[in-house]
Amino acid sequence: MPSGTNSRSLPEKTPRLKTQPALPSGFRDWGSEEVRKRQHLFSIFREVFERYGYEPLETPAVELLSVLTGKYGDEGEKLLFRILNSGDFLEGAPMEARASSATLLPYITEKALRYDLTVPMARWAAQNASKLVFPFRRYQIQPVWRADRPQKGRYREFYQCDIDTIGARGLMPLLEIYHIAREVFEKISLRGCIFHLNHRMLLEAFAQKTGWSDSFVDFCRLLDKADKVGWEEVVSLLREKGVHEVSLLDPERPLSTDEVESLPLPDEARTEILGALEIIQMYENDPILALRWDRTLARGLDYYTGFIYEVKKPGSGVGTIAAGGAYASLLHDFGGPDLPAMGFSFGVERIYALLTDLPVSSSKPWLVAWTDATPEYIMRVVMALHAAGKSAFAYPAPRRLSQQLEYAQRRGLPFVAIVGQTEEEHHTVTIKNLSYGTQVSVALAELAEWAARV
Amino acid sequence: MPSGTNSRSLPEKTPRLKTQPALPSGFRDWGSEEVRKRQHLFSIFREVFERYGYEPLETPAVELLSVLTGKYGDEGEKLLFRILNSGDFLEGAPMEARASSATLLPYITEKALRYDLTVPMARWAAQNASKLVFPFRRYQIQPVWRADRPQKGRYREFYQCDIDTIGARGLMPLLEIYHIAREVFEKISLRGCIFHLNHRMLLEAFAQKTGWSDSFVDFCRLLDKADKVGWEEVVSLLREKGVHEVSLLDPERPLSTDEVESLPLPDEARTEILGALEIIQMYENDPILALRWDRTLARGLDYYTGFIYEVKKPGSGVGTIAAGGAYASLLHDFGGPDLPAMGFSFGVERIYALLTDLPVSSSKPWLVAWTDATPEYIMRVVMALHAAGKSAFAYPAPRRLSQQLEYAQRRGLPFVAIVGQTEEEHHTVTIKNLSYGTQVSVALAELAEWAARV
Repeated sequence: MPSGTNSRSLPEKTPRLKTQPALPSGFRDWGSEEVRKRQHLFSIFREVFERYGYEPLETPAVELLSVLTGKYGDEGEKLLFRILNSGDFLEGAPMEARASSATLLPYITEKALRYDLTVPMARWAAQNASKLVFPFRRYQIQPVWRADRPQKGRYREFYQCDIDTIGARGLMPLLEIYHIAREVFEKISLRGCIFHLNHRMLLEAFAQKTGWSDSFVDFCRLLDKADKVGWEEVVSLLREKGVHEVSLLDPERPLSTDEVESLPLPDEARTEILGALEIIQMYENDPILALRWDRTLARGLDYYTGFIYEVKKPGSGVGTIAAGGAYASLLHDFGGPDLPAMGFSFGVERIYALLTDLPVSSSKPWLVAWTDATPEYIMRVVMALHAAGKSAFAYPAPRRLSQQLEYAQRRGLPFVAIVGQTEEEHHTVTIKNLSYGTQVSVALAELAEWAARV
Repeated sequence: MPSGTNSRSLPEKTPRLKTQPALPSGFRDWGSEEVRKRQHLFSIFREVFERYGYEPLETPAVELLSVLTGKYGDEGEKLLFRILNSGDFLEGAPMEARASSATLLPYITEKALRYDLTVPMARWAAQNASKLVFPFRRYQIQPVWRADRPQKGRYREFYQCDIDTIGARGLMPLLEIYHIAREVFEKISLRGCIFHLNHRMLLEAFAQKTGWSDSFVDFCRLLDKADKVGWEEVVSLLREKGVHEVSLLDPERPLSTDEVESLPLPDEARTEILGALEIIQMYENDPILALRWDRTLARGLDYYTGFIYEVKKPGSGVGTIAAGGAYASLLHDFGGPDLPAMGFSFGVERIYALLTDLPVSSSKPWLVAWTDATPEYIMRVVMALHAAGKSAFAYPAPRRLSQQLEYAQRRGLPFVAIVGQTEEEHHTVTIKNLSYGTQVSVALAELAEWAARV
């Protein structure tokens, strides 16, 4: 609340002059190994997505709050990183509004960082709806930002990797998504995962048949707890709520066609579920990605409209590594066409955590150490090594040879090509193998061929 | 200023309920063609940088203001996108501080979006100095954000692409940077560019010799104007300032070794400049990247300490497409070692603008249109086409065949593989060529081989 016009001097709060090199909490850097691994993973995603005709889309890091607001619920909205308006941001904010954060907020910020990839995609598709041909398929691999409380393994900046088809419905896109996941996992040698499948209408039928009387969302939330508190606990909670036929909800109970026929289901949902049961027969024992019906999979949402799915690797200690479902696209909210959608999101960070040895080439570069040769001759040596398929560079400053060799040793570089006046005069280079301490003289004209064999 | 404790109700300023799909000004989306082209360009950058032993680094989008402050000058600091603190951001801000934006600022924001890649790299290298072996080389390709006034061709989010060596000095890294630029341009078929080269010490010698009496920075700024206002105008401005021997600064005047010998230069700088003149002889007529001494190139900064360089393509209508120089690394400011550095930054957006035809495969996917076949058979057709190296997908919803064909036509897809009950029974697929209107039946077992030839 305003405290009057007291004009005593303000407490000092100016930036420190000596700069501590530090990161804001919840953020992290990516060193060379990590960037290379992530690039490799992304290139596999891109390759598989493109093969299935998905097209890339990238949206800016910053979106209007008017676009983001009302999409993520109250909890989500609290986690938006809001950007302070530029310039004299308080101009136009009445004194009364400055009394509290809540009243001031609308005056000083109108943009925020991207929170997920679904809303920006819907915003983009609605803006471009007249140019697009539906069904429209895109993939998007970009970071998102959430002001979550930082904790082990949870960061405020992380990549999402989404595929979505606006105008998708039914079995065919489900089977496609299963195969896309399977192909990605095969390429990164990730085996033993399970693709858990359920359908919102089946959950609604169960709620109805077991006499659940509260909201459907609460029903889903309760079922979702089984993963954390165990099925026994969920059973007693269900009983407290007056649910009968609890066995209908037992996650271990297989779903039979007879049971599906007997449940109160809309025709389209029944056809989809029966079709899915047929497909499951073919993939239930797949060693890479076993397909299973999971009658309690709920993913907690009224967001989904049809199939819902989630991939886990049992015993890995890592939770859901990919998930998605059929949903009503948000395009209509943005003034676009009213179309159903199906999407899938890979948890890049979690998948990355499961991959102990991604096959990323980490061959170390060759160093060209030099004393009194001409830069041009030194450069010819570098390029001969490049021609041999090696990465190589000349030491980037004039320095004593012993110091250049020490640098190579400290970095663990396997080979040093030494170039001095003698070498240049004789058109040669002296190659030192740092592992064995041996050295040999090679003619520059033969260097590329020689190095290619090493 | 605080206006008292008047508690009348605040003017309403709540988010609109109907969401307009719009982007904040100065931001843009990247559609499929643009993402593919940019990915292709980045992969070329990465390939060349890695060949020269540069290692990738990625830093978070968000940095502490304490890290960014004092690095970009007053003008730069105004362009930072500041992030509002989470939660009750006004808590702890005394009422008096709420009187103006300037006094409130330090209380409500402590983070900002990355403004360039040099400061985050220095922050990272200082934090990790004990683990790094210097000279240290890294490349970084990431977007940066600046709250510049949006205008044609100038965006508030754009990619930077930097290479830097911390611990570099002299001719050898200069020659390397020239070759890196040349190799990148060769790979993207960009010819006819000029690598303009100068040296800070030469500029200082000119300032001294021509009797310039103001600050050295002003001298550089004045020379920098030649590009915009023309040399004649710069000459009259120099004369106004009492400069004699203006011809010393004529950009058309070649730099001779005799002239370099006669100028008041530190020994090391003289050696570097004379060495560069020798190298220039070899590359001055290079058809891809001609190397030229440019005695008025100033790049307006006291930031640089040795060589400075800038690449342009004459007649392209696009300004500087890459630039850099030797500078005192910022590591010392962050408590790290005091090392000289050399860097180079590619203007991704401008280079992108010069590339009319990057060779990016834009082959359209095949559509598998289907009626009453099983999902599994449809999927087998999709995968046979993948095996032929085609991208392909099944129509993602149950729909009449005519509508699926209309979709293929509207998207300009060249081939549709039609699958219905008859095809499944006979283990075939009907291929329709939409360009010619022809169709043919192919056995599923032969589809991959057949499609690979199309």
